[in-house]
Amino acid sequence: MEQILETVPNFSEGRDPEVIEAIADCFRGKPGVKLLDYSADKDHHRSVFTAVGEPDALRDAVIKAIGVAVARIDLTRHQGQHPRMGAADVVPFIPIRNCSLEDADRVAKEVGDAVARRFGQPVFLYERSATKPNRENLSDIRKGGFEGMAEKMKDPAWTPDFGPATIHPTGGVTAVGARMPLIAFNVNLGTDKLEIASAIAKKVRHSNGGFRYVKAMGVMLEERRLAQVSMNLTDYTQTSVYRVFETVRMEAERYGVSVVGSELIGLSPLKALMDCAEHYLRLEHFSLEQVLETRY
Amino acid sequence: MEQILETVPNFSEGRDPEVIEAIADCFRGKPGVKLLDYSADKDHHRSVFTAVGEPDALRDAVIKAIGVAVARIDLTRHQGQHPRMGAADVVPFIPIRNCSLEDADRVAKEVGDAVARRFGQPVFLYERSATKPNRENLSDIRKGGFEGMAEKMKDPAWTPDFGPATIHPTGGVTAVGARMPLIAFNVNLGTDKLEIASAIAKKVRHSNGGFRYVKAMGVMLEERRLAQVSMNLTDYTQTSVYRVFETVRMEAERYGVSVVGSELIGLSPLKALMDCAEHYLRLEHFSLEQVLETRY
Repeated sequence: MEQILETVPNFSEGRDPEVIEAIADCFRGKPGVKLLDYSADKDHHRSVFTAVGEPDALRDAVIKAIGVAVARIDLTRHQGQHPRMGAADVVPFIPIRNCSLEDADRVAKEVGDAVARRFGQPVFLYERSATKPNRENLSDIRKGGFEGMAEKMKDPAWTPDFGPATIHPTGGVTAVGARMPLIAFNVNLGTDKLEIASAIAKKVRHSNGGFRYVKAMGVMLEERRLAQVSMNLTDYTQTSVYRVFETVRMEAERYGVSVVGSELIGLSPLKALMDCAEHYLRLEHFSLEQVLETRY
Repeated sequence: MEQILETVPNFSEGRDPEVIEAIADCFRGKPGVKLLDYSADKDHHRSVFTAVGEPDALRDAVIKAIGVAVARIDLTRHQGQHPRMGAADVVPFIPIRNCSLEDADRVAKEVGDAVARRFGQPVFLYERSATKPNRENLSDIRKGGFEGMAEKMKDPAWTPDFGPATIHPTGGVTAVGARMPLIAFNVNLGTDKLEIASAIAKKVRHSNGGFRYVKAMGVMLEERRLAQVSMNLTDYTQTSVYRVFETVRMEAERYGVSVVGSELIGLSPLKALMDCAEHYLRLEHFSLEQVLETRY
């Protein structure tokens, strides 16, 4: 069965279309790779690409793209609103179909090793590829930014996982790692009391004793006069969408409040939604291979 | 643009793996044809195959498969729970991509003509290929089953569309026709009382006042000692899977019986299952374009 991995690399170039297109070209017209989307932000001076593909083909495309970024982006002359530490700043790999976090982690490490050897770019492994707990969170790695990174890396705690023990003079450092797809899922409550949504957010989120892979907060939809439990589900294979939904509904009932709707922001993996159909219909022996569209 | 047609032929053999594999071999390794799935049911004594392909290549594979069935299945010695009238019992053709019901209808008629001439198998055109209103519904054609078919065909109203005016002595008769995608959906009840499943089947099926696009009957899963409401949903865009499921559950409750599970047999269109996730999660503004896998 075909394996599909996704990558969403961020580059510190949001203004020069030639560089942005040169990066895009690393993903275009490559067998086994598809560039789904890319966008540049002039204020952030940053561009974000979304590509999917077979793990090895995607790996090779990303290595080329990082090579272009290191060669053509000079962070000593870069100013933008977004925190950054590298020409290629952060490169996540995300398992999408028929592959696991372990597959994504392998590709992340191969990319880190290759760009360190070929371009002299230091690499920190982050998120689920992190080799130390203080490297799991991107913001911990990036603290100090490009300008502070050479000094920061004098501390042995910040020796990179691949490459030289100090920054690339113009390319800085890059974070590469595996993570799960993220699902932005909001549940709208039949109340205008923000405090109810906030209380429920605390009950379902990990930081307050809730589900391990849920981040949540209460927000107010001013136009609709509805309070919303706004969530990020960071690993739907462990913390299912339907389980979070039903828990929010159950907690809302305690206030006599109903769930009037929900929304998914952006894209969700097929399996995250199929898990919901499977749960509610009580399906036995169900497989994604039974979805007609996965077979062609 | 490549045309893709689907076929889901049903054969009256669910126990002999040699015959089942011989039928599968008619679809395997044929250019322009892909066997997506097949499964056999011992209680029903029946097997179902799902194949897609270019119309003419798929037509030729199906003709061969019917030839194998007529040669190797003897209905005079066949007993199973599922109604049947032919060794190759029913052969639908379904437009999937870049082709229409008319294309499916053309292939259906070419198959009917070929198997009548080559194997002496009488063929009734059914569903959207039917030549008379009383042949649209498979159950009207199949009424009487294999055992009653020779007598039934003495009536000129039941002269077949292709082939001899009486049954093939061991192969019976076959229904061939064009139709839209169909979902085979079964709900398992926590009871061993077949009459409860049968009563619920009557309540949800079109022929007795139920949902317009539901065909249903009660069957007994002997090994598990569970009664099942076995259904075909003939247009999920009009009669949703979740609505049928919830109605079966509601009717079962009236007997104090719970739904212990359900199953999809073969393939389902993505949208049929997404409609369920959307319903139960109360999703607002949801689009299939939000499913990651639809984007590549």
